[in-house]
Amino acid sequence: MLIKMMARAEEEQVAHVIERIQECGCQAHLSRGVERTVIGVVGNTYEHRNELEALLAAPGVEEVIPIAHPFKLVSRDFRQERTVVDVSGVRIGGDELVVMAGPCSVESREQILETARAVKAAGAHILRGGAYKPRTSPYDFQGLGLQALKFLKEVGEITKLPVVTEVLATEDVEQVSEHADMLQVGARNMQNFPLLRRLARTPRPILLKRAPSATVKEWLLAAEYLLAGGNPNVVLCERGIKTFETETRNTLDLAAVALVKELSHLPVVVDPSHATGRRSLVPAVSRAAVAVGADGLLIEVHPCPERALSDGPQSLDLPGFAQLMHSLAEMRGGAFQTRDRPGSKANVLEAE
Amino acid sequence: MLIKMMARAEEEQVAHVIERIQECGCQAHLSRGVERTVIGVVGNTYEHRNELEALLAAPGVEEVIPIAHPFKLVSRDFRQERTVVDVSGVRIGGDELVVMAGPCSVESREQILETARAVKAAGAHILRGGAYKPRTSPYDFQGLGLQALKFLKEVGEITKLPVVTEVLATEDVEQVSEHADMLQVGARNMQNFPLLRRLARTPRPILLKRAPSATVKEWLLAAEYLLAGGNPNVVLCERGIKTFETETRNTLDLAAVALVKELSHLPVVVDPSHATGRRSLVPAVSRAAVAVGADGLLIEVHPCPERALSDGPQSLDLPGFAQLMHSLAEMRGGAFQTRDRPGSKANVLEAE
Amino acid sequence: MLIKMMARAEEEQVAHVIERIQECGCQAHLSRGVERTVIGVVGNTYEHRNELEALLAAPGVEEVIPIAHPFKLVSRDFRQERTVVDVSGVRIGGDELVVMAGPCSVESREQILETARAVKAAGAHILRGGAYKPRTSPYDFQGLGLQALKFLKEVGEITKLPVVTEVLATEDVEQVSEHADMLQVGARNMQNFPLLRRLARTPRPILLKRAPSATVKEWLLAAEYLLAGGNPNVVLCERGIKTFETETRNTLDLAAVALVKELSHLPVVVDPSHATGRRSLVPAVSRAAVAVGADGLLIEVHPCPERALSDGPQSLDLPGFAQLMHSLAEMRGGAFQTRDRPGSKANVLEAE
Amino acid sequence: MLIKMMARAEEEQVAHVIERIQECGCQAHLSRGVERTVIGVVGNTYEHRNELEALLAAPGVEEVIPIAHPFKLVSRDFRQERTVVDVSGVRIGGDELVVMAGPCSVESREQILETARAVKAAGAHILRGGAYKPRTSPYDFQGLGLQALKFLKEVGEITKLPVVTEVLATEDVEQVSEHADMLQVGARNMQNFPLLRRLARTPRPILLKRAPSATVKEWLLAAEYLLAGGNPNVVLCERGIKTFETETRNTLDLAAVALVKELSHLPVVVDPSHATGRRSLVPAVSRAAVAVGADGLLIEVHPCPERALSDGPQSLDLPGFAQLMHSLAEMRGGAFQTRDRPGSKANVLEAE
Repeated sequence: MLIKMMARAEEEQVAHVIERIQECGCQAHLSRGVERTVIGVVGNTYEHRNELEALLAAPGVEEVIPIAHPFKLVSRDFRQERTVVDVSGVRIGGDELVVMAGPCSVESREQILETARAVKAAGAHILRGGAYKPRTSPYDFQGLGLQALKFLKEVGEITKLPVVTEVLATEDVEQVSEHADMLQVGARNMQNFPLLRRLARTPRPILLKRAPSATVKEWLLAAEYLLAGGNPNVVLCERGIKTFETETRNTLDLAAVALVKELSHLPVVVDPSHATGRRSLVPAVSRAAVAVGADGLLIEVHPCPERALSDGPQSLDLPGFAQLMHSLAEMRGGAFQTRDRPGSKANVLEAE
Repeated sequence: MLIKMMARAEEEQVAHVIERIQECGCQAHLSRGVERTVIGVVGNTYEHRNELEALLAAPGVEEVIPIAHPFKLVSRDFRQERTVVDVSGVRIGGDELVVMAGPCSVESREQILETARAVKAAGAHILRGGAYKPRTSPYDFQGLGLQALKFLKEVGEITKLPVVTEVLATEDVEQVSEHADMLQVGARNMQNFPLLRRLARTPRPILLKRAPSATVKEWLLAAEYLLAGGNPNVVLCERGIKTFETETRNTLDLAAVALVKELSHLPVVVDPSHATGRRSLVPAVSRAAVAVGADGLLIEVHPCPERALSDGPQSLDLPGFAQLMHSLAEMRGGAFQTRDRPGSKANVLEAE
Repeated sequence: MLIKMMARAEEEQVAHVIERIQECGCQAHLSRGVERTVIGVVGNTYEHRNELEALLAAPGVEEVIPIAHPFKLVSRDFRQERTVVDVSGVRIGGDELVVMAGPCSVESREQILETARAVKAAGAHILRGGAYKPRTSPYDFQGLGLQALKFLKEVGEITKLPVVTEVLATEDVEQVSEHADMLQVGARNMQNFPLLRRLARTPRPILLKRAPSATVKEWLLAAEYLLAGGNPNVVLCERGIKTFETETRNTLDLAAVALVKELSHLPVVVDPSHATGRRSLVPAVSRAAVAVGADGLLIEVHPCPERALSDGPQSLDLPGFAQLMHSLAEMRGGAFQTRDRPGSKANVLEAE
Repeated sequence: MLIKMMARAEEEQVAHVIERIQECGCQAHLSRGVERTVIGVVGNTYEHRNELEALLAAPGVEEVIPIAHPFKLVSRDFRQERTVVDVSGVRIGGDELVVMAGPCSVESREQILETARAVKAAGAHILRGGAYKPRTSPYDFQGLGLQALKFLKEVGEITKLPVVTEVLATEDVEQVSEHADMLQVGARNMQNFPLLRRLARTPRPILLKRAPSATVKEWLLAAEYLLAGGNPNVVLCERGIKTFETETRNTLDLAAVALVKELSHLPVVVDPSHATGRRSLVPAVSRAAVAVGADGLLIEVHPCPERALSDGPQSLDLPGFAQLMHSLAEMRGGAFQTRDRPGSKANVLEAE
């Protein structure tokens, strides 16, 4: 950590800061430049981070500059090899591109079954579908809840697709865990810390969406809550951030995907549906996500988007999804196989 | 609601949209301009909003334009007179400016008592202090929890100041309600809908912070969850939004305060501490908040900011807070009285 | 155009708006819904756009909602087939991916010649290099000016690469046009309207960068200035927008590339160097840009980035660029050929 | 300057960086912490800033952290006392609040004369009005140009109000200088460096608006171009930045006003009209600007906003402006006097 003093900081202010650094059991290295005095802090700065950062409030201090990354367990400095997360036999973060597809909301048994069969046939690996829906307005459809969870579980078994669904509240974690193979933390809950702490104690893998206002570092620190709490099976999901551009629902930050893969060993997938909010852009943006290095995609698909109870405008219909899968397979010089692997429920993309 | 067709929309696409509108029990009014066909929807569009909005996914549709505001109960269209929220005798939203002050985190009985006495003496009306702290990093101080709640309750009684504190999780609502006069929903939880639904059923007034990525409409819709669920005692709190500017912690959106007072009957207060992240800017920004029409302020105060376990750099020290209160009183041509009102615990700002 | 009245608009306010619409030679279609009265404007709304939009200031008006796109000549509604821009024999917007590469600033004859030879050998089609540099600080290197233009022209001839360089001021347009094959409008000048009007009168093709705060519509309207003024040879360049994320220099908006290709017939290229500001992210982001449908790339390359006078951290070195070109060629299932086409100075990417 | 090495930087990489620092004539101070090696650079880092910053591109370097502010002449470190800018007798930056008012565009002699008389009577100090208008669309009204300048000059003389108007292009500087007392650099031109360099050589004071995507530091560096080029008479103008919030035209950043007054000795005024884009919000936001410490206001006023050729929705009408001036005077415990000072053309706000 470095403490930069103001241009006109007085000697006793410098002395006071040094004293406080020593109180924390660290050493202070003084460096006087032409314009500023900078005090380097050496020692166990991590443990005393809070106290040292509070020195920004001490008289004469202009800035406190952290040197170490704020995250640990999620960092590639901590773990060199890539994490591969196993979702009931589907491996996210390995060589294969993993596609999770399904409707925004589970609306009926028929709707989720029809969608699941179609996305399976097209090569998808995991079924998505919302049971508990976080909706901006209290008057919007809030999801079928437990009924939807039961449909998802049944349809996952019928189609041999693992299931991912969002969990909104700590009190639902157990129930959702019983019905789904992977639990999603939505963008609005990325910094719902009680929920993260609860999920850190489940055996289920977690899909952690980036909040619309989260920097890459804040996102990784949210993942750190999960790892630090005991759950190493975390998949990150970029789904667009909030910017001044309103033509798309959010602004997809694909450079962040490449960056996170430099900074962290965790797998990263991309949600082009929420990122753009426009069905017509989903295929091109999906291909870009694959090209930038994403480990997978999360795509909204509905048998009849114009009758969807939520997110219709950004949902692909069934033929549109099949076409996208075809173009992704072409791009990777292979095809998504629809056979079932022994001991698993997954489709595989293999070079022909 | 208006449905704008694409420039090259075909007749059968227009006919299909009209049919769907009629299915929803509404009437369609067709208007053919030089460049576009627009279909007006008349009837109970509110109830069928989801279905009508999904028509954006229908072939040939370019845009669906809502006409009504998405919120109802929070709107001034719904209720003309201003809401005044009573917090154990302190009225927010009336003629008086209400100042809530205290440390970011409750760190010890001594710290919160010393702060409470000082802010009371300076004219503050409500004591703030964090018991459960939402922290970006899992390694940061997470608050003293129940112990802090007990200190707050005791110190509130000693100093006759009502207490506001943040509640992070539905499972804590009951306990926090027993110890505090007002419950705060933090910026990161503004769209934690299970929490909002739970808080809608408490008798306690709610302080609802704007999320760093929330538009004014999303913020009002979060409040709508509380009112629709049965709790009319909601105070909104602007605390800055996330923008590209990094010199301040957030960008305080004071025009939004004036705008919300046009759109809604709910009181609005401002948090200059989180908005700026810099102690030196807090006084000027507080005065601006008062001038723009805020009903109150939420200010972080610590006896020794450089030793604060959280948010030291943005906390005023005790003399700094007294000085700010003095300048606010001057600005309003009066002074904050420190006498206790019969049957209440509040300071009053009165013209001399 | 649609004019939405306030909930409590009075009859005479509605009548006044209708009268003003008729004054503009248009017809008003009144539609009274449950919550709002909406007045549709039919007729030559385009010509009277300014007057009609000003009605937002009339009493009782809540919103003026435009129906037509604000741009015309750049729109695909206006021209269905894609524009291909010819830059001295290199065609941008056709089937081939066009790569423009070179240093941020021309620093010496030797530096630009070495770079040009290397990027040509690696398969680049156009040479980029800054002569006049827009720098945030007046104390930064401002470019070699005319000297740099001469180097560019000479080196372009030696290596048979067309040259693109930025023009900052109307008074430089003639001189820059004499030395370069394509003129770049930098992000900071996207709304420098006198410059756009001057460039609309040159025979040179224009590379128009998106401003860091420009919406897609504002960007297209800037291009509209060029087309309306007489220059149809415009290539758009996405280079990242300003957001709260600071880990990357800007936030690259690749969905905007796909969107612009829907809205407009103009070619779009991507600048991954300015978008990310980090050399290590350039290759992955370049591949994503190609996958999303960009017609070309603009890449900063320097023989020794750590000695670059500007933008070193985001510049590829020569072997790094060659490696990127190799991976792009692989991705497209072909290779960039280094032979010269008869009558042109360009490299070609062809399927093998 | 500090150079932070990567966690796994090798010894020879550290040695290489030290060598490069010494090549620049500076000394390197090595500090090895638990997690990172940091190299402090001492000496004339300012002159070698470009070379030192380029070391971010050297192998093993993770970050280059500047210590000094990037600006000099505009800084309060450089000049302690506040700058007061004299605009033909009106002093901006002193104790008086200066109000500049007038229409967005000069539309006719009659319109500007009527407005000027009214704003003068209400207490305004400077007349504003656009002659050359930067418009997002080429089809919008672009201003009356020279004719408008002549009206402004004549009306300024009749009403004894100094005149401020925007200059868009270097080639217009001379002509605009002959007709106006102060030259405005619009938000879109804040980083039009040829224009800034040209304006640095005029004797006229400059009103420099913040660009919608400019950080406070970039804004101050734009002012640095003016001061470094020889023009010390610069007034900064905050007019809102571009954010995700679309209810207001921009997001007014009032904390930036307080911050700039800490960092710089230059006066700062606020433009509530462009910041909000909504007439109804202008009065409250103007009062907030005064309370935060702005030295003045720039307000759009039109005799008939609904017929304005530009920016009608954000323009006050004449009685609305008079009312605002009254409320500002009340707030400051005085009144704006309409008498003319000897030797000057200005109104004065004095305590009664």
